[in-house]
Parts: sequence; structure tokens; C-alpha cells
Amino acid sequence: MSTIKKVVLAYSGGLDTSVILKWIKKTYACEVVTVTCDLGQEEELDGLEDKALRTGATKAYIDDLREEFAKDFIFPMLRAGAVYEGRYLLGTSIARPLIAKRLVEVARAEGAQAVAHGATGKGNDQVRFELTTGVLAPDLRTIAPWREWDFASRTDLLNFAKENGIPVPSDKKGSDHSMDRNLLHLSFEGGELEDPWNEPSADTYLLTVPIEKAPDEPEVITIDFEHGDPVAVDGEKLSPAALVKKLNTLGGRHGIGRIDMVENRFVGMKSRGIYETPGGTILHVAHRDLEGICLDREVMHLRDSLIPKYAEMVYNGFWYAPERVALQAMIDQAQERVTGTVRLKLYKGQAYPLGRKSPNSLYNPKLATFEKDEVYNQADATGFIRLVGLRLRGLGVK
Amino acid sequence: MSTIKKVVLAYSGGLDTSVILKWIKKTYACEVVTVTCDLGQEEELDGLEDKALRTGATKAYIDDLREEFAKDFIFPMLRAGAVYEGRYLLGTSIARPLIAKRLVEVARAEGAQAVAHGATGKGNDQVRFELTTGVLAPDLRTIAPWREWDFASRTDLLNFAKENGIPVPSDKKGSDHSMDRNLLHLSFEGGELEDPWNEPSADTYLLTVPIEKAPDEPEVITIDFEHGDPVAVDGEKLSPAALVKKLNTLGGRHGIGRIDMVENRFVGMKSRGIYETPGGTILHVAHRDLEGICLDREVMHLRDSLIPKYAEMVYNGFWYAPERVALQAMIDQAQERVTGTVRLKLYKGQAYPLGRKSPNSLYNPKLATFEKDEVYNQADATGFIRLVGLRLRGLGVK
Amino acid sequence: MSTIKKVVLAYSGGLDTSVILKWIKKTYACEVVTVTCDLGQEEELDGLEDKALRTGATKAYIDDLREEFAKDFIFPMLRAGAVYEGRYLLGTSIARPLIAKRLVEVARAEGAQAVAHGATGKGNDQVRFELTTGVLAPDLRTIAPWREWDFASRTDLLNFAKENGIPVPSDKKGSDHSMDRNLLHLSFEGGELEDPWNEPSADTYLLTVPIEKAPDEPEVITIDFEHGDPVAVDGEKLSPAALVKKLNTLGGRHGIGRIDMVENRFVGMKSRGIYETPGGTILHVAHRDLEGICLDREVMHLRDSLIPKYAEMVYNGFWYAPERVALQAMIDQAQERVTGTVRLKLYKGQAYPLGRKSPNSLYNPKLATFEKDEVYNQADATGFIRLVGLRLRGLGVK
Amino acid sequence: MSTIKKVVLAYSGGLDTSVILKWIKKTYACEVVTVTCDLGQEEELDGLEDKALRTGATKAYIDDLREEFAKDFIFPMLRAGAVYEGRYLLGTSIARPLIAKRLVEVARAEGAQAVAHGATGKGNDQVRFELTTGVLAPDLRTIAPWREWDFASRTDLLNFAKENGIPVPSDKKGSDHSMDRNLLHLSFEGGELEDPWNEPSADTYLLTVPIEKAPDEPEVITIDFEHGDPVAVDGEKLSPAALVKKLNTLGGRHGIGRIDMVENRFVGMKSRGIYETPGGTILHVAHRDLEGICLDREVMHLRDSLIPKYAEMVYNGFWYAPERVALQAMIDQAQERVTGTVRLKLYKGQAYPLGRKSPNSLYNPKLATFEKDEVYNQADATGFIRLVGLRLRGLGVK
Repeated sequence: MSTIKKVVLAYSGGLDTSVILKWIKKTYACEVVTVTCDLGQEEELDGLEDKALRTGATKAYIDDLREEFAKDFIFPMLRAGAVYEGRYLLGTSIARPLIAKRLVEVARAEGAQAVAHGATGKGNDQVRFELTTGVLAPDLRTIAPWREWDFASRTDLLNFAKENGIPVPSDKKGSDHSMDRNLLHLSFEGGELEDPWNEPSADTYLLTVPIEKAPDEPEVITIDFEHGDPVAVDGEKLSPAALVKKLNTLGGRHGIGRIDMVENRFVGMKSRGIYETPGGTILHVAHRDLEGICLDREVMHLRDSLIPKYAEMVYNGFWYAPERVALQAMIDQAQERVTGTVRLKLYKGQAYPLGRKSPNSLYNPKLATFEKDEVYNQADATGFIRLVGLRLRGLGVK
Repeated sequence: MSTIKKVVLAYSGGLDTSVILKWIKKTYACEVVTVTCDLGQEEELDGLEDKALRTGATKAYIDDLREEFAKDFIFPMLRAGAVYEGRYLLGTSIARPLIAKRLVEVARAEGAQAVAHGATGKGNDQVRFELTTGVLAPDLRTIAPWREWDFASRTDLLNFAKENGIPVPSDKKGSDHSMDRNLLHLSFEGGELEDPWNEPSADTYLLTVPIEKAPDEPEVITIDFEHGDPVAVDGEKLSPAALVKKLNTLGGRHGIGRIDMVENRFVGMKSRGIYETPGGTILHVAHRDLEGICLDREVMHLRDSLIPKYAEMVYNGFWYAPERVALQAMIDQAQERVTGTVRLKLYKGQAYPLGRKSPNSLYNPKLATFEKDEVYNQADATGFIRLVGLRLRGLGVK
Repeated sequence: MSTIKKVVLAYSGGLDTSVILKWIKKTYACEVVTVTCDLGQEEELDGLEDKALRTGATKAYIDDLREEFAKDFIFPMLRAGAVYEGRYLLGTSIARPLIAKRLVEVARAEGAQAVAHGATGKGNDQVRFELTTGVLAPDLRTIAPWREWDFASRTDLLNFAKENGIPVPSDKKGSDHSMDRNLLHLSFEGGELEDPWNEPSADTYLLTVPIEKAPDEPEVITIDFEHGDPVAVDGEKLSPAALVKKLNTLGGRHGIGRIDMVENRFVGMKSRGIYETPGGTILHVAHRDLEGICLDREVMHLRDSLIPKYAEMVYNGFWYAPERVALQAMIDQAQERVTGTVRLKLYKGQAYPLGRKSPNSLYNPKLATFEKDEVYNQADATGFIRLVGLRLRGLGVK
Repeated sequence: MSTIKKVVLAYSGGLDTSVILKWIKKTYACEVVTVTCDLGQEEELDGLEDKALRTGATKAYIDDLREEFAKDFIFPMLRAGAVYEGRYLLGTSIARPLIAKRLVEVARAEGAQAVAHGATGKGNDQVRFELTTGVLAPDLRTIAPWREWDFASRTDLLNFAKENGIPVPSDKKGSDHSMDRNLLHLSFEGGELEDPWNEPSADTYLLTVPIEKAPDEPEVITIDFEHGDPVAVDGEKLSPAALVKKLNTLGGRHGIGRIDMVENRFVGMKSRGIYETPGGTILHVAHRDLEGICLDREVMHLRDSLIPKYAEMVYNGFWYAPERVALQAMIDQAQERVTGTVRLKLYKGQAYPLGRKSPNSLYNPKLATFEKDEVYNQADATGFIRLVGLRLRGLGVK
């Protein structure tokens, strides 16, 4: 342990990472540099630098990574159509590799020997952080206090905080959920949600209004895509982060993007989660819809068969793993064609496609029509069916 | 052609199959026996026998296959979680093999040499019919008049009808869609839908109310499943068909299960379809939700990676193909555990799970909690992450 | 630790498991019951009971599991066509679950609280043992001495042996390989093989002659299969284990079934292995060849796409995991048809199919011939190609 | 038909394509331009131009495409590790798209309206030709005389030849096989092979000696790869085609690369084929072996799961289809690392790897050794196994 002289800590300014900051300094007798990444969690970052320094940090980085997050993490995942276990849009999972990458960058700049994070020993986030630092900087050590310290309960933690002059926030209005928020989503776990038969209380959600309070008037929007990435809303070009944020506002207003599910963690247990992904849901729906006219059938089916695998990679923390990078190469090659516009109706919890168009459309109205055409000869179908079915007829013969 | 003495025709009583009946008799100089399958299309079947006989049939079968349809076709597909191209729940596709199977049964009973159907030469249905008859009765010939006759336009068809005393219905209130309806769904194609940028007119849908007109009060229901099959709604045991029908009513009232998409047909072109699957959507959502607590993670991920393949098999008409049967064996083995209850809120177009429980639940609240437990040792995560990441650290070393 | 009163140990009678026996007794102050499974390793088992008791065991089981091994482990894997990373036929992997299952059975019969094995902390075997005991008996503890004790080197181990009166065998003629042998195969690792550029020395192999010494006369045999399982060689019905053993003799004589490869271990590193699988190789080749006439194309392609997954499950130790069981259900359903006979030539390291026949053959010489036939209408190909290529022509249009 | 004024025909100079040349001229009353592609079939091309002109061609192209064939077709397929149905290395399949591409190029240069080929209506080649021309030049018509003309037998064809002054070769020494040869392989079908129980006669093979006649001395060679492509044999840099040719010589001398199998054609029937792929087999073995040290485990397993799909694409003729192109993007991205050298022993029908090395090797002898090391902590395995098995223990609890 004596070799660790400087540690770079992912720091939120909350109770847990404040305790961790202090605990690392004490335990490892080393310097701590904090890094706070703005990924759109919409928390007050003013004053965080002061707070970190006051709690004992040597230096405190505050980095606005929202555009990088949207462009290099959310968008590639959107191009892949990633959904975990049929529903989860991976809002927490996709943020972790970026934070870990930033920890590594700062560790290199600061000459640190270790990075540290505040993820517990039962969750996926510890894996996502440490797989990323492992591939980007295998020589750096990782400190995961939740797996190392002796605190046996929340009370122990609070006692340590008090003893070390760390301000303990009074309890938030009764909520005992664990939350994670960023530009893409907000998640809830724990508390009364631990019984999967329980309905979450009405005040659980933050990004989306309940459908009961959504406007009675639908809103119709268009989203433009280029090569699989969204670039404009209602014709207005927006930066990646600004675009996601705008769709969060629109989607939230209409109650779009809530999910309640029991999912399988990489560390082996099932866990119940509540997710709000308003903008991400709209984008997912619109992107899939546009693919309907732009993507070749077999390309889509091949890609679709790999979505569970891709989503698993992201969920499990293998963003920088070579298998994700290789698979992304296939996906991105195929997404070259996915350029065009989708018109959607946002209303009462749903983003519903009304129309789609594309300069690369493979939809041919002449082929689709029931009327005679010059492109398609119906007699061809006879031969097609006979040869496609040849092996089946062979099976049918006794 | 002289060898064809008797033909069994899938007959709806509409203009097209009436023309076909007459055309086959004339062209093949043979007897025609008609078969009308009640798959829940909710059309008047009284009088159909008379009509068929009057149009020239020797004999007319009217068969209520709704329970068989639900139990042996819809439910196995539900157990598989089948979705085509991310959205379509395969309502039309799954009906065709049953109709074709019934044609074969009647052909055997009647000693017919051929079966006939009214599907056009540009669609998927012809393939689904003929692959099924090919595997079940490879010796039977198939007559597909749409690919054989010389009618160059709808007008030719109407002229033939008039010349042959077939009553031509006056145009339905301006709609020029092609529709297909059964217990599972209603589909629309054609007409103004042929431009994928066009929104369907408000009066297109029949099974579901527009969300604008859905009740302002949500409805909460429970669905019980046994081994992957739904068996009860709100605790009331129902036969397969009755259960689907009840959920159609509930879902329709709340505007649930509309889809608007451009899909890829097996015969090679893209096609725009509108679907209403109220009960099927509720079942799909509830089943997936229950799997969250009943299915092992790796079983689910393996199955999920095969859903596109399974859905493709159903969509393309390979229901009786050995690859579908083999895959179903895997799915059904895994579904043994999927027994339990899901509570859902039906509201404004959505079926939203509120809770789920199961005697086979693999969810362990002790493992999920953030508090200390005896089952899970957080220190295990250190070794887990290190070995899972070993190959990545090796890649990271330069 | 005080709760462990009796431990069931997988015992080979060699130095390592003898040391382990003693070490467990000392460390846990408990009874040790040994289990030695005869899986065809062709080692002297006479005297092993005495040896175990003399080394301190309370009781020593010696079980002949060769028929169970062949029938319930090797054959299901053969039906799946399992090959790991393109080459390895999984001879070691498939044995571990059976040994672990036997440990659990004895632990139950003996009322033990733990099982123990002699696998090291760097290999796959520890995982295979412990995943199996975990699923079959989650309440049983596992003792893995190689991960627990403080011996820092081989010398420490030898010292412990001497101090505790365990006879240390004099070095085997210079070989420093680690070996594993059973009915299916023999594997070598370690020693000079650790440099993957090194060729193994000529005397490494035991089951197969070098091709240089194989007979100059080929041997032609037939193997009969029923539902995917081999049942006879040259027309002589044989029990599963006897059949594999006979093919080992035949294959070994002709130098068949050597593999030299670098593979990826589940615990994360690459490892170089040398394998001899004479009978297994012949069976694998013959089975695949028979499938050529018995299996439907799409069933085979679906199964083939899952072989890497299945092989990974076996290699990683997930034999009793629900995903392997589910996948096996699909495979076994499809193997129902795989009944027939393959004629092979064994010669100079190769098992080469000369002919195959089956009552379930889907091969139709009428279809295969270049001459005219009544089954196949060449004109059908025109329509087939046009529709199969429709989407491609659409892509080609600029 | 009157619109076809010029046709570009794939011409070999043999009886069939000579008849076709004449038949097209007569039937379509048009010009015929011939194209003969040298893909390494080792046939006399001198005099072919004259022969084509004499038989009625307006112009005759003779193109040496061997380097393009090796570099842009064989090598990408090698990088993918493609094997069809577990055995076939796709030697015929991979040649067709290149010939078809050349037909299109010449058709464009010559202003032709159609291309023509001599593939029959029962095989895969017609599909491979026409899918390629379909995607590259959807406006071009295809003439496939075997599907169009009225010749009912071989005799009719010979009669047409005689009537039209086309020299008919006297029968080759009794062989009635259909053969296809190019740089990558030689295939045989038909004749006595149509009974899959029959062994091919000893004189069937052309590229490889029977093992009985292979040298008694093994030959040890090295092959160097860069980014997945072979670049040198025994240290000597060779062009792609020269390299394959050299390995054909070496492999043929040692009897390497024979396959006898029943395979599934895309047009629906099973067919028995004999293949000789001497150089291709050596390359396939060497490439797979090098991947053992260069490729990450998960990348390899992901790729392996897609080999059947990729091979199917090539076999079925979808080389220029977007799904093959997309999948190739993934494969090529992953192959970047596959650089190094493999040492192989060629002997008695086998190419057996003796050693492999690479500047990108991921093999770490420190990790593989049984001795203590600093990289790997055996205690990590405990946590790894516990978490990997957590879901299984949960299943095991009753």
C-alpha cells in the first residue's frame, strides 16, 4: 500500500464520496484528487470544488462531458438499437465507461497510482468502472472502499462522517431509493421497490409526468437522422447533448419513457429497477422506425440477432472491450444508410411514428402496391415458393 | 390438369374468393369444396354455407378453430416472445399455417387433389399457405389463382364476377385498405398507407379506440401464467380463446396495441403495415415481465438472441418447418418455470406492469438489498472483476 | 470452520490429493471421505482404498462411472457437435461435472458439510467443479486447498508430504507436463509447452502413435448411429463406454485425434494444450457426416450457429446450468432423425468418410442428378432467384 | 426480346458454353461477346479467343483475374474463417461473384443489354451469378439457357452441337463427374458419386496425391500473416495468387485437403460433393492457429458464432449483399491484430501446427504457468466462481 501516493476519486460531493475521500486519505495515507463529471445529472456543481478541497482533496476537477457523452457513448449505442432484456435502455451502464476513462486521463495527468470509485460491491457499476480502467490503464490500481472498509451498516458510515466533520444531509422526504441520473436517464432502485410486487409510489418519478397529468393535446415533432445519429428536432440542428436534452423535455412533458422491470445483474442476482428515459425512448423509437425504410432486410435481421449481445456488453461494462469495438464496426458500416426524417406524435406516454422518409429509402411503392407493376412478376413467386419449400416437401414425404 | 377432380378452397365468402371459386371450376373443370375457418375474424358466418353452394361449391365446411388457434399457435409464439423487426406481433403470419393445415385435413377427408387460396402473388400469405401444405402434404397440388389468371386489373375481376352472377358489394365507405382480422389482430395495408410518410386517417383503426378517446381512468388487471401460457385474467380462469378475446376488449377500450411500421416481406420488398393487437400486446408485455423473475439470466439471453430468428420463421411461413419445431423445444423447456402473476395498468394506449410474483421466482430480496446479507460476500466481487477483466488488462498492456 | 465435520474429497491417490487429504484433516480438524471415480483414466485402482485409509480417510469410495460418463455426458455433447474454439473436443471439460455430481451424491449419503477438489486456482477445473456443486447442492461448502493454503512452491508441498509420511514418487522420466486422462481423451499442458512456438517432444503423446509409425494399410470401419448416438462398430452392438474404448484403440493405432492449440481459459488467460482424442475424433467426424444426409438444412445451420455457445458452456463448466439443458432440448429434438451408418477409412492420422446411408435420409438422388427429373422444375429457379434477389436489385438501383 | 442486341457470355471454350454461344445468337438474334476469366483453373487459354470468334462471338475477352481472386475474394473469406456445414471451404462459391462482376464490367464497356452463363437450373451457381449481377447491375437482363431451352437430354445438346459445327470432344476416360476448378480448389459431383454410400474411384482426385502415395518424409513450413492475410511461405514474400499456388503444390504433394460430404444446396436439395483444397486447407488451419494467440477470447467466440452465417452468405451467393459487407467490417476490424508466424508440418494428408508466434500475442506465459506469479492472484478465483455461480446456486435452492 505504501506505493500509493496519489489517488484519483470519482466524486459527486454527496455523503458517500465525501466519506470515501476522507477514508482513502486516512487508510492509504495519500493525496486524493477528485474528479466530478458533468454527464447531465442536473446537480449543482458550483461550490463542489471548494467542498472537495475542504474535505481534504489536493485538487478537484470539474468536467463538463455532456457533449462527449452524447456523441461518443449514447449515439453509438443508439445506432446499435441496444435494449437490455427487452426493455432497459442502458442509461446508467453507458455512463460508467466515460467516467472511468476520465479518471484514467486525470490519473495520468496527475501521476497517480490508483483510481477510486464509490460503487458498492453488489452492483454492476463497480464492474463497469474497473473493466474500463483495466483495459485503459492496467497498471493503475483501483480502490473500491465499499469492498474494503469495515463499516457494517449505514450507521457506521454516518458515525465516520460525523467524526470526520463531513456534513450529513438530513433525510430526503422519506425516499429510500438509490438514484442515478444523467443526460440519458434517471434510475431508481431499493426501498419499497425491493418487493417486485409493490408498485412504486406516485412521487418516485422525476423526469416524466405521470400520464394522468400529461397534456390532453398531442405534440407532433420531426427528428432528422444522419448515418444513424439524430441531428435535428423539428428541423433545428442541435448538438448531440442539446438534442437529447430537448427530447428529454418534450418526452418528460408527455410522460414518455418509464420502465419498471426486474433485470439480471452481471454480478449474478436479479434486481428491480425503475427507469425514466424520455428522450432516449423517443430516439430509440424514431431510429428503429427510420431503419424500416433505410436498412436492408438481412442487415437488419443480422443486427437484430446481435442486439442482446451488444446490450449485454454495454450492461456488463465491456464498452472498451474488443468485442464491442468489433461489433460496432459492423453496426456503423450498416448505419451509413440510415439518413432521413421521422415524424412522431408524443402523447400520453407514447412516442408514436406517423411517417418516415429518406433519400436512401429502399421502400418502393411500385413493389408494394396491389396493382400490376413492371418491377415484379407474380409468376416468380411460384418458383420461389417451390424452391424455398423443396426441403420441406422432402421432409413431408414418408 | 385433367388429374385435378376436386379442389379444397379457403373461402371467406367475399368477392375475391367467390370469383376464385367460380374461376377454378371453370378453369379446372372440377369440383370445389370450400373451407371457412373461424379464427376470430368476427364476421358473419351464418349463410356462408348457402352462399358457397350457390356460387358452385359441392360442399362447404365452416369450422370454429378459435381455441386451437389460441392454444396451439398464438400461445407457443407468445412463449417464444416473438416480435418481427422489433415491433410486429405476427398476427397475420401465425394464422396462415392453421388455415393451410385445415385445408389439408379436408383435402384428405374429401379425396381432393389440390388446395387453393386467394392470396396474391406479391405477399407473404401465399408462401405461408404453400410451405405448410408442402410439408404436410407434398403430393397435393396448390392452385393460386392470383398467380395464374389473366385478369389485368380490378375491373377485369369485377367483370368476371358480373358475368358469373357473383354479387359485387358496393364500395365500403371509401376505404381502400386491405385488411386481415383474426383473434390476435387486425392489419391494414395499401391505399394511402402506400406512402410511408402519410399518417393513416383517424378512422383506419377498428379494434382500438384512439388514445384521445380512451377512458381517463386507468384499469388495473392481473394475468396468471402457467408454464409460459396465460390462464386467467383477474383470477378468472379462461379458455385460451376466451382469454385473448377478453384482453382484446380490455386493450381495445384503452387504445392499446397499435403499430405503424414499414416491414420487410419474405418475397423481397418493403411494405407499410398498420396493426392493432390489443390483447396480444398486453400478453406480450405481461409475459416478458413475468420472465424477469422466473427465467434464469443466461436462458433469457440465449432465447432473446434467437427471437429474431424465431420471428422470421413465423413471418416467413415456416411454422411446420423442423427448425421451428426444434427451436420451440428449447423455448418450451425453458418456459416450464414461467408460472406466476403479473399486475398491469391499462391506460391511454399502454399496458404497464406494476408488479409480478411467482412461486418459481429467482428474485432474492436478500441479494438485491444494499444492506449487508449472509448470502453475498462483497469481497467476492474483487476476484470476479479481476478475472473477468484479466483478458482486457492483457490487451491494455503495450 | 467449526461447522465442517466431514469433507468429501475427489481423490486420485497421487501426491497432490494425498497431501490435500492430510491438509484438510489438519486444517479443518474433520473427517475426510474420499471418492475416486473411474472415468476410464486407465490407472490402477486396486489398492487405492487402502492408500486413502492409510493417508487418513475415514472411508474411501471407488466408483466405476465409465458407462454413465459415456452415455450421459460424452454422447449428449457428441449429439451437439461440440467443438471449442474450432478444435478442442472438450475431453477434460466434460468429465468434471460428473465427478462433482458424484461428490455431491456421496456428501449427501455421508452427511458431509463440504466437498473438496485438487484443482488449482488458475485453471478451468475449479470452476467446473464448483459450478456443478453450486447448482446441485448450494448449501455444501467447497474446499479448494490450492486457493487456501500457504505453500509458496512445489518444494513446500513436497516438504509437507515428507513431514506427514506421504510417499513422494520419484520424478517421471523428465516429463513436467500436467496430464488429464479419461475415456474420451488425454491432455497435456505445462513444461516446455508453455512456449507456444515449441514443438512438443516426440514422446509426449500416449494414446496415439505418431503418424510416422501408423500402419501402412488403412482400416475401413462402419459406425451405426441411432438418434444421434453411436451404437455399433462394424455391426457389433457395444455399450457406450465399450464403443468409445474400441474406437480409442482403433484411432490410437492410426494416430488419429491429436490437437495442438492455444486456447482461452474461462478464468481469463490463454493456455497451450495438447490433446489426444482418438475415439472422440472418429465419432465427431462420423456423426457430422451422417448428419449430412439426415438433418434438414436449416436445422443444421441453426444448430451450427449455436455450437460455439454450447461448447463454451461445456468448457466453462455450465453443464448443469439451465441454458445448457434448454439448448440440449433443441439439439436432442433435432437428433431424433440422425440414425444410420457411416463407413470410414482410418489411415495415417485421419478418419475419412467413404460413404453414409440412413433410413431417414433426406438425400434424393432424383433431385441431385443433372438429368431431367419429375420432382424439380428448373424454371422454378428463375422465380426463386428473382425474389431472393429482389432486395439486392433494389439496393443496386441508384 | 427484341431489346437485346448484345450479350456478354461467361465462356470456357468447352462444349456447353460453345453450344450456349450459338444458341443465344440464334434465339436472341443478337451479338455475343465472350469473357473467359482465368481464376487459376489451369486450362489452356491460348487459342480460346480464336475458338470463340469461330463459334460466332463478336469479341472475346480473356482476363487473368488470379491476383484479384486471391486478394479480394479468397483472403477476406479466409479472414472470416469460413467453413460451410462444418467442412466445405467454399472454393466454387467464392469464384462466382468475381466472374459475374467481370461480366458486368464487360457488359458496361460493351454496351450490352444482357449477360449469360452456363450454369444449370438445379445448382447454386446460377444463383451466385444472378444475385451478383442483380446487385451490381439491376438493369441488365440475364440469360440462363439451361433454364430456357427445350433440350430434353444430353443427346439433344450433342445434336445441336453437331448441327451447328461445334466440335464435340470424345468422352474423357469414362469419368462422368462434373468438375469445377480454380486457384482455391477442385470439386467433383455427379456420376457414381450420386449414391452417397459409394466411395469415389481412386482416380477421381487431381490436385492431391492419395495419402498412400504421399512422401514418407514430413515437410515443415512457416507461413507469415499480416492482419489476417498470408504474406509469406518459409519467409519468402509472395503475391496472394502465387502464395496460394505454392501452397497448392505443397499440400497436393502431401495429400492435404480432401473432403467428401453431402451438403445442402441453396436451391433446396442435398448434393454429394468431393473437394480438393490443398492450399486453402493449409491456410485455414494456419490462420485459425495463429488466431489462438492473437485474438481476444470474446472476439473469437463472437466471430465463431457468425461463421455459419458468413459461410452461408458466401455459399448462397450473397457476396455483394450488404449483410456480407457489414459482417466483413466486423471481421476485418478484429483481424487487425492477426499478424505473426505459424510453423506447420505437412504430412500424410495433414497440416499440423507445431508452433506459432506473434508480435501481438496475447498469450502470457506468466499467467499460464503453474508456478506462482505476480500477475494472477489465485484467491481471485474464489470470488469469480462464487459470482459466476450465484444464479446457479439460486436455482439449486428448493
